[in-house]
Amino acid sequence: MTAPSEAIDPTTLTVGVLGGTGNQGQGLALRWAQAGIGVIVGSRAAERAENSAKEYREAAGVDHVRGADNATCAAEADVVIAAVPWESHAETLRGLVEPLKGKILVDCVVPIGFDKKGPYPLPVAEGSAAQQAEQILPESRVTAAFHNVSAVLLADLEQPSVDCDVLVLGDDREATDVVRALADAIPGVRGIYGGRLRNAYQVECLTANLIAINRRYKVHASIKITDLD
Amino acid sequence: MTAPSEAIDPTTLTVGVLGGTGNQGQGLALRWAQAGIGVIVGSRAAERAENSAKEYREAAGVDHVRGADNATCAAEADVVIAAVPWESHAETLRGLVEPLKGKILVDCVVPIGFDKKGPYPLPVAEGSAAQQAEQILPESRVTAAFHNVSAVLLADLEQPSVDCDVLVLGDDREATDVVRALADAIPGVRGIYGGRLRNAYQVECLTANLIAINRRYKVHASIKITDLD
Repeated sequence: MTAPSEAIDPTTLTVGVLGGTGNQGQGLALRWAQAGIGVIVGSRAAERAENSAKEYREAAGVDHVRGADNATCAAEADVVIAAVPWESHAETLRGLVEPLKGKILVDCVVPIGFDKKGPYPLPVAEGSAAQQAEQILPESRVTAAFHNVSAVLLADLEQPSVDCDVLVLGDDREATDVVRALADAIPGVRGIYGGRLRNAYQVECLTANLIAINRRYKVHASIKITDLD
Repeated sequence: MTAPSEAIDPTTLTVGVLGGTGNQGQGLALRWAQAGIGVIVGSRAAERAENSAKEYREAAGVDHVRGADNATCAAEADVVIAAVPWESHAETLRGLVEPLKGKILVDCVVPIGFDKKGPYPLPVAEGSAAQQAEQILPESRVTAAFHNVSAVLLADLEQPSVDCDVLVLGDDREATDVVRALADAIPGVRGIYGGRLRNAYQVECLTANLIAINRRYKVHASIKITDLD
């Protein structure tokens, strides 16, 4: 019931990961590389990106990972993941309007802050990080996903499976099906359609609750959706 | 690891359900009644509340359910659930400041709207329904929980178990432990600490995503937290 279009073979795609040297970007890049998907690690500095790419090639035991500055990453990838810190989200995307035209952008950025009492949601004028991306990139196919999957478990390749569901949000059915296929390519992960982009904020910020759970219970929590086969 | 204080026996509590004639209130009242917990169904009109209470007594095969107007419900219950529609949330609580003093208030109200494109989150000036309750009820112990559990599955007593986790939010540890025990009293449900009250909005509004999932996949979706034993 939850299977995405079987027609979509994610190994035919090259995925670019903006902020691919950060924790979430690293985890996703490693798992996709291991699943046979070509990955371009993006960073502000090409050299830094290539250093991470070399590290990921060795960890995953594959050669189809390379590094590039963010603009090259966006231009050469088929699908582009925004995994940059919230603080540089708008600025990064504003510089990539041209190379991202017509492409699927997968926003996994979480607008949350931290203080002595822990994590908390930050207000976003556009409604959510994903809707901010949509405003900056009117000619891209903006989706949102991968907010709630544990970066720690993703990056630990000794864990054979990352047991969770990834909510994929967006108004473009074909785009969300592609992103769901990218989620399904990670062992243990199911990509589930999670609503229109205007429902992204609560999924982004649920990450704050998961961090609170991690601290209380000493776990690496994510979510699964019940009642789906 | 996730067990609440074993010291808390929820069957020693009388739970009041404001809006207990609505869908979510009905489901919770039925399950608690069946678990041996005394329930006062609250409604604006005492007669309407008593009609529902009678129906619940018959459905659950118990006699410890009674109906009352909301003010009596709040005054006579040990723990009070706010399960009213978002539209009457503030107004209902403003009328109950006195009877709710010193009591645990469990807010399960979701500030979401619907249009042709489906459900979507509504802005809340105070941050969330639960934080609105906290402002209105400064002398109550405000928590938030039971937003994401399916009212349909709760109310269907032929389902022996409601397989989901309930995130319990609040800044008062003892209060969240009591609410977790009330969650654990429902077969199949685990009460999980989900963060401070300032993290309630995204849990409230995640209900919109679950409704989108229900529509797409024809299910009654809820969530489970992964990596907890």
